Amino acid sequence: MSRSRTNSGELLVELRRDSAVPLHQQLESGIRDRIRQGLLRADAVMPATRALATDLGLSRGVVVEAYQQLVAEGYLVSRTGGYTQVAPSAAGPQASKVTAREPGGPPRIDFKYSKPDVSQFPRAAWLRSIRKVLNETPNRSLAYLDGRGTPELREALADYLNRVRGTSARPENMLICNGFAQGSRLLLQVLAAAGYRRLAVEDPSDDELRGVAVNAGLEAVGVPVLETGLDVEALERSGADVVLVTAAHQFPTGAVASAAMRSALIAWATKHDALIIEDDYDAEYRYDREPIGAIQGLAPERVVYAGTASKTLAPGLRLGWLILPGRLVEPMSAAKVVDDRGSPVFDQLTFADFVARGEFDRHLRRMRPRYRRLRDALVGRLAERLPDLVPTGVSAGLHVLIWLPPDLTEAAVSNAALDRGLGVYGLTPYWVDHPGPEGLVFGYGSLTEPAVLEGVDLLADAINSFRS
Amino acid sequence: MSRSRTNSGELLVELRRDSAVPLHQQLESGIRDRIRQGLLRADAVMPATRALATDLGLSRGVVVEAYQQLVAEGYLVSRTGGYTQVAPSAAGPQASKVTAREPGGPPRIDFKYSKPDVSQFPRAAWLRSIRKVLNETPNRSLAYLDGRGTPELREALADYLNRVRGTSARPENMLICNGFAQGSRLLLQVLAAAGYRRLAVEDPSDDELRGVAVNAGLEAVGVPVLETGLDVEALERSGADVVLVTAAHQFPTGAVASAAMRSALIAWATKHDALIIEDDYDAEYRYDREPIGAIQGLAPERVVYAGTASKTLAPGLRLGWLILPGRLVEPMSAAKVVDDRGSPVFDQLTFADFVARGEFDRHLRRMRPRYRRLRDALVGRLAERLPDLVPTGVSAGLHVLIWLPPDLTEAAVSNAALDRGLGVYGLTPYWVDHPGPEGLVFGYGSLTEPAVLEGVDLLADAINSFRS
Repeated sequence: MSRSRTNSGELLVELRRDSAVPLHQQLESGIRDRIRQGLLRADAVMPATRALATDLGLSRGVVVEAYQQLVAEGYLVSRTGGYTQVAPSAAGPQASKVTAREPGGPPRIDFKYSKPDVSQFPRAAWLRSIRKVLNETPNRSLAYLDGRGTPELREALADYLNRVRGTSARPENMLICNGFAQGSRLLLQVLAAAGYRRLAVEDPSDDELRGVAVNAGLEAVGVPVLETGLDVEALERSGADVVLVTAAHQFPTGAVASAAMRSALIAWATKHDALIIEDDYDAEYRYDREPIGAIQGLAPERVVYAGTASKTLAPGLRLGWLILPGRLVEPMSAAKVVDDRGSPVFDQLTFADFVARGEFDRHLRRMRPRYRRLRDALVGRLAERLPDLVPTGVSAGLHVLIWLPPDLTEAAVSNAALDRGLGVYGLTPYWVDHPGPEGLVFGYGSLTEPAVLEGVDLLADAINSFRS
Repeated sequence: MSRSRTNSGELLVELRRDSAVPLHQQLESGIRDRIRQGLLRADAVMPATRALATDLGLSRGVVVEAYQQLVAEGYLVSRTGGYTQVAPSAAGPQASKVTAREPGGPPRIDFKYSKPDVSQFPRAAWLRSIRKVLNETPNRSLAYLDGRGTPELREALADYLNRVRGTSARPENMLICNGFAQGSRLLLQVLAAAGYRRLAVEDPSDDELRGVAVNAGLEAVGVPVLETGLDVEALERSGADVVLVTAAHQFPTGAVASAAMRSALIAWATKHDALIIEDDYDAEYRYDREPIGAIQGLAPERVVYAGTASKTLAPGLRLGWLILPGRLVEPMSAAKVVDDRGSPVFDQLTFADFVARGEFDRHLRRMRPRYRRLRDALVGRLAERLPDLVPTGVSAGLHVLIWLPPDLTEAAVSNAALDRGLGVYGLTPYWVDHPGPEGLVFGYGSLTEPAVLEGVDLLADAINSFRS
């Protein structure tokens, strides 16, 4: 059978003789690309090395080396008879699967909850901390991974939380994780493995944890939130053996757990040998008084405390922490090691220095009045323009829940707002077991004061369009 | 019923009037600590606010504020009749559960595999990159999380890998993960959910993936490794629908997959609509020639390529990456979001700049001759002192496998070595289905040349103690 050789003209690879990349590698890349693009078909016979070398002005050795490499990689096959073919499996164009997904234009003013104002991220102070870390961290810290995180950060955070949040943390009971998402997932997995069966969540509450619980093999049930925090009598009836609470500032209602509720919760946990998960996601932002201390401080062996830098510094840091009862330290540390071998060290060491040098306190002192002004602007303008929309919850955090009057629905208001370039979001996704009254959850953390005021004006305009 | 009040002398909290911490907070901390330590019993009646204020030289308002805060937190209970008690649930000393776990002294010279030489971490260049990132990163990058990772790093790595590893990567097909540990776990979960059933792993191979596969709901079977890579005929018989290979430099045997094996592997995958996972964990370190290109470049829709910075920069970075076939991009990105919302941004952006500016190439050019010298020292000294211990595999990577002659066992050699302060480790843990011949896996990446030479001398001494 006679085979026609590929014309070496098809292989006139553009060689850059001034490049640091050796010529044989440039030739390899060129041939590899042509095979991938389907320009060289499967089973095509390659030019003789001598001919190609002549055409390209290369020594034959360079071509031989390139062919050998591509044979070794499986792009080419060396045949008895001294010729070289494109391998049957290698060739063929790869259809581009890039699908152009045009994102829908975001609202011009968006009250979506979640982000703090990342434009205020303390870049200079953070850089000072990381410079110190890079200059001073011993080499072993770059290789050593502990499921609980670096000792430096566990110490700095234990000190900080004991001072500011009234916790009872020891460095050896702390675990650093990649945000609350990873921490809560690992915790629910470990609890399911330890025999826990039913997680109670606040109703309404963040809608994501329920799926995580079910994936971990736990049932999830909703327990109503009253103005004084979780309804512990309903919790008692729920049959849950673990409960997640946002006691210092309930999400999304903004309720603060009363002292009676806190005591009742601990009594419940003691009576049923149950566990409390305290998600202290935004307690750094209480504007009218000192924030309520963490429940964890009252009953460290009954409570897992969870905190995060996502609301105070930036979600992109992916830094979260847990304070664990003694019996959960080993299994959680082991689960973290299996999950990802431990959290990245540089951010941990940087944050440790940042906290220990008081930069974190400084940052929060700077941010509180900013957020308070935004909240006051939002609540004040609402009272002025839409007095029958009633804000609920204490002066805290980065969000506020507004109950809607009976003539308005979340869907109608959201749609009319969106027509005006305004994003507002209903309470409905946060109801767990039973839909309750309709309301809107406003996040204001990443807006400016003029945007907040204009947003309320747009909302009033949208609502008045129904009412006129 | 008459109640005796706690003597206010028991509450003589040391107040620092020059401190930035407000006096009421100092008082709260002091009382909280005493309750926690059990110095104030449950139900103990607190001193009257006026009396305590007088004793401490404070205004009464400060004491009232502190009591109110502690009542709100649940440490104290305010009773009708105007007195305040320690809450029943709050008090009691917390037994310290710190168990002193003295680590066994590590060997003086340790051939344990895994770490690169982190003392060579390019701290100055890394700091230049992070300074640039902190100065130039737009704010939105600190808040925006994509399950696949930052576009900057996906672009930089796609360029790098296509150039150096012969891959066919596009930024939109890349996913950044927290090291191979997370990446492989998520991948096996996604594959199990997509209906894959049986994972073939090389036998011998890294012992950790098997457990991950089983946790994900996959069967795991071993397939023998020959000198030319995985035994594809045995793979055919195994009934596997996904296989994990370390084709460029098999771990731990050091074998390099031949061109025939690579073609056969792709043919197997095509025939069975199966998937290949290519763990390219240390291909940056080939010392005697250009490393073999990645299989992924031959069949991008059949191969998931996995890489890591753990062997080139530092394990503590927790940076890994996958190149995914188009159909796996969406499910993997979604799985990553559920897992931890995405990887931390600063390290990603820093590494992107580091790669794009050529610092990564520079670092590797600097490290290759160092590691090669260590390997040559190890192999050379072994040939001299212990000629019947036969090294296997190509000149590459950070480890070498040495077969033991029939008169020696891994256990006996390891123990005798440890008596001499030397850590050497057997091959046994790496066998998957059937134990094979005995051998030792030497990691040399984090040792110095004198330590390597002395280590071999100690090993010779240990072995000669059996033979004399």
